[in-house]
Amino acid sequence: MTADARPTLCRLDGKRILVTQADIFMGPVLCEVFARLGADVIADSRTLDADPLLPQAIVDAAGRVDVLVAHLATPAPTTRADQVEEDEWRMVFAQMVDPLPRLLRAVVPQMRERGRGKLLVIGSASALRGIRRASSYSAARGAQLAWVQAVGVELAADGIQVNAIAQNFVDNPTYFPPEVQANEAFQQRLKREVPLGRLVSAEEDALLAAYLCSDAADCFVGQVFPISGGWATR
Amino acid sequence: MTADARPTLCRLDGKRILVTQADIFMGPVLCEVFARLGADVIADSRTLDADPLLPQAIVDAAGRVDVLVAHLATPAPTTRADQVEEDEWRMVFAQMVDPLPRLLRAVVPQMRERGRGKLLVIGSASALRGIRRASSYSAARGAQLAWVQAVGVELAADGIQVNAIAQNFVDNPTYFPPEVQANEAFQQRLKREVPLGRLVSAEEDALLAAYLCSDAADCFVGQVFPISGGWATR
Amino acid sequence: MTADARPTLCRLDGKRILVTQADIFMGPVLCEVFARLGADVIADSRTLDADPLLPQAIVDAAGRVDVLVAHLATPAPTTRADQVEEDEWRMVFAQMVDPLPRLLRAVVPQMRERGRGKLLVIGSASALRGIRRASSYSAARGAQLAWVQAVGVELAADGIQVNAIAQNFVDNPTYFPPEVQANEAFQQRLKREVPLGRLVSAEEDALLAAYLCSDAADCFVGQVFPISGGWATR
Amino acid sequence: MTADARPTLCRLDGKRILVTQADIFMGPVLCEVFARLGADVIADSRTLDADPLLPQAIVDAAGRVDVLVAHLATPAPTTRADQVEEDEWRMVFAQMVDPLPRLLRAVVPQMRERGRGKLLVIGSASALRGIRRASSYSAARGAQLAWVQAVGVELAADGIQVNAIAQNFVDNPTYFPPEVQANEAFQQRLKREVPLGRLVSAEEDALLAAYLCSDAADCFVGQVFPISGGWATR
Repeated sequence: MTADARPTLCRLDGKRILVTQADIFMGPVLCEVFARLGADVIADSRTLDADPLLPQAIVDAAGRVDVLVAHLATPAPTTRADQVEEDEWRMVFAQMVDPLPRLLRAVVPQMRERGRGKLLVIGSASALRGIRRASSYSAARGAQLAWVQAVGVELAADGIQVNAIAQNFVDNPTYFPPEVQANEAFQQRLKREVPLGRLVSAEEDALLAAYLCSDAADCFVGQVFPISGGWATR
Repeated sequence: MTADARPTLCRLDGKRILVTQADIFMGPVLCEVFARLGADVIADSRTLDADPLLPQAIVDAAGRVDVLVAHLATPAPTTRADQVEEDEWRMVFAQMVDPLPRLLRAVVPQMRERGRGKLLVIGSASALRGIRRASSYSAARGAQLAWVQAVGVELAADGIQVNAIAQNFVDNPTYFPPEVQANEAFQQRLKREVPLGRLVSAEEDALLAAYLCSDAADCFVGQVFPISGGWATR
Repeated sequence: MTADARPTLCRLDGKRILVTQADIFMGPVLCEVFARLGADVIADSRTLDADPLLPQAIVDAAGRVDVLVAHLATPAPTTRADQVEEDEWRMVFAQMVDPLPRLLRAVVPQMRERGRGKLLVIGSASALRGIRRASSYSAARGAQLAWVQAVGVELAADGIQVNAIAQNFVDNPTYFPPEVQANEAFQQRLKREVPLGRLVSAEEDALLAAYLCSDAADCFVGQVFPISGGWATR
Repeated sequence: MTADARPTLCRLDGKRILVTQADIFMGPVLCEVFARLGADVIADSRTLDADPLLPQAIVDAAGRVDVLVAHLATPAPTTRADQVEEDEWRMVFAQMVDPLPRLLRAVVPQMRERGRGKLLVIGSASALRGIRRASSYSAARGAQLAWVQAVGVELAADGIQVNAIAQNFVDNPTYFPPEVQANEAFQQRLKREVPLGRLVSAEEDALLAAYLCSDAADCFVGQVFPISGGWATR
C-alpha cells in the first residue's frame, strides 16, 4: 500500500500469493514476476489430480493466502474428437477442473473472515474459440471459465474477486519449445493466425496476472481476460 | 426435400432424429415439435451417467441417425460455491458432460460415411453469464459449450454440423413448475431480470432446435445460440 | 397461423414484410425466400442516405408493416485505416447507420398500436471480429449492432422484437462475384479462414432471416445472430 | 524502461500521453493517475465535434505522442428510441465517433516511423449490453468498439496497439454526481444490477487505462476490456 492508501498499479507488496503446479507451464514466470513486484510467493509444485484432500492441505500449510492462483496445467492431447476415450477425458477434467471446488472450499473461509481475497484461474482461450483436435482440453477449459463467472458473481459480496485469464499463443516451454519456435512453418502460421505476428511473451502474460492479483483489480467480478495476440478477444 | 432441392425452412421430413433423456426437461416438447414438422423421432429416456457403453448401444439400436440431439439434463443444485462437495461435482459432470464424447464416438462413423449429419447440444445460458449458487451446474454447462465449439470446427470438413442452444428462462416443468410461475415474486423477478418480460415458451425453444436440426442450418459451425428472453445474448 | 394457433416454424403466411434496398446485396434473395414462405413482400429499392424523410414516406406508402427488414448496404471501402477521409466516413454512416432511427420512428407507432411487430437489421460480422482495411465499414456496422441491442431491450415490452443478423462470407454478387469465386487463391483463403470451407449460401442466409421474421422468433430481444461459416460465432 | 529492459508493470515513466477532453468525465482522473505513474501528460480540453482539422492541430502541437487516449465524452441522452431525432443522432456521432479517424490520421505517421505507439479508446459497456433509452449513445459507442477491433488488427504489424475500455457504473461526476449517489433508490439499483455492489472507483478505471498504456500491454490487438462491476463482462 502507498502511504495515501491508494492502490498502486500492479504492486504486490506484502501480498501472500499461492501458486499451484508452480514448476511447469506458466508457473515459474508467474512466481518470478510476482516476487519481483513485491509478493510473498508460496509455490507448490504438485499436480492436483490425485488426492481430493491435497488442496486443503496446501492451503492449510500456506497460512494466510491473499491471492490463490489456480494454475492447473496438463499437456493438451491432440486426439481426433471422435477418438477421445475415457482415460483422456477423465484425465483433463481431473487435472484442470475437479481441483477448482476443492481449492475454493479450502481458501474461502479465511478470505471471507478477512472480507478480502482473490482467486485467479489461469485458463485458456481454447474455451473461447474452437480448435481442431483439442476437444477434451477445450471442454475442460470451458468448465473453468463458466465456473469462474458463476463463482465470481456469488463471492463478490464477500469482497472476494474470482477472475480468469484465457490465454493462447503465449510463449512457454510446455507448448512452444525452442525447436517448435525455430520451425519456419510455425513462424508462418503465427503470422497468418495471430494478428500480433508473434507469441505473447511469458512476461506479458505474467504481468496481466500480476495486475489481476493487485488491489487495482478489486473491481472485476467473474470476468475472463483473453490474452492471445488477438487470436481470440472475447 | 422439396422438388427443387432447395432446403425448406425448418421442415424435418424424413429426418431421423435421436433425442436422449426424452421424457424429462425439454425432451417431450422437442419430440412433439420435431414429429409435427415431419421428423422420425427416436426417443430414448435413459439417463447417460452410469454406463459408458450405453450411448453406443442407443445409437446402434437407432439405426440411421441424421441428427443427434444431446439433451442431457439434471436438476440444478443450489449449493453455495464454497460448499460444493465431491458428489455433486461428479454428478453434474457425469450427467451432462461425460456422455458427450461417447455419443460422438457412437454417431460420427455413420455420419462421416454419408458425408452428412448434425449434433445439437441442448445447453444452458448459465455458461454465458454468472448465476449465484449454480457453480457446479454452470461449470458442466461451460464444458458443453466449449466442446461444441471445438468439435464443430473439427467436423465441419466432414459435412457434420455441431452446434448448441444455450437456454435460460424457458418454460418447462422441471425448472419452472406451475406453482413457481403462479408466485407473484417470481413474476416480479421475470419483469426485472428478463427483458422479454415472460418465460420463453417451450414451443419457441423447440422451434429453434428444429431450425438448427433442419437443412437450413447446414452453414453453422460450432456455434452457440442463446435463447433466454434477452437475459444473455452472447 | 396454423389452425391451432401454434407458430409454425418459418412460415410467413400473410405477414407484410418491408425490405429496403431490395434490389442489391441480399435484397433479391430475401424477397424471393420471404415470398416463397408466404409473406407479402413490399420491396423498396431506394438508398436511404440522402433524404431523411424518405423512411417515413416508404413506411407510409407500405401501409401495414408486420416486419421491417432494415437492409442497408454499400460496397465496403478497402482504405487503409489511417487514410480514411471524411467523405468515406460520412458515406458509410449515411448509408448504413443514420437511416436506422428514421425507420424506427416511422414504423414503431403502428406496431405499438397493434402490440406486435419486428425489426430485423441485416448487419455484418465485421463488427464482431476485426478485419484489415475495413475500419469505416466495421465502425458503421458496429453502430448497427449496438443500436439493435439497446432498442431491442427497450421495445420488448411493446411486443416489438428488434434483432440482427451479423453475416460474413455469405454468397452474394456484390461482395463475391463469380470471377472472385472462380479464383484459386480465393478458394484457398476460404479453406484457411472459414471453418465451413465454403461460402454460406444466399439461401441459407435468407432462411435465417425468415426464421427471425417468423412468429417462432417472438422470444428474442436485441440479439445478434452471427452467420459466417464459423468465422465469427459470437 | 528498467535497467534490464523488461517491461515494468504499469509504470509510465517518460511516456508522453495525450488525453483529449481532459477536463470532463474521466479526463481529470486519467491525467492525475498517468502523471503519478510517471507519464508526461498532454491534456487537451476541447471537444472534437466541430472542427475536423482540430485533431491534427492537437497532435501537431503535442509533438511526440507515445499514447493517444481517445477520451470522447458527451452526456448520454435518455430519449425513447422511437423519438430520437436528427440533432441528437448527429450530435453523439459528431462528439464520439467522427473524431476517431481524424485522430488516427494525425497520430499514426509518427508512431509508424518509430515502429511503436498506442491508441486507447475510453469506450462504454453500453455497446456490449442493451440499455433502455440509450439507443443513440449506445450506437455511437458500438461504432467505437468495432472500429477499435478493425484498426487494432490492421496496425498490429506496425507495432501500434489499438484497444478500448468499455466501462459502465464507474464513479464520475458526469454520470453519477453526489446527489445521485446519495439517493437510496440508486443504491438499491446498484445492489440489484451490479454484481460488485458498488460503483467501480474512478481510480480503478484509471489504473486499467494505465495498464493498457504501459509497455506491459504491448501484446493486445484490437481488444475491448469491459469494466463495469460485473454488469457486462464480454
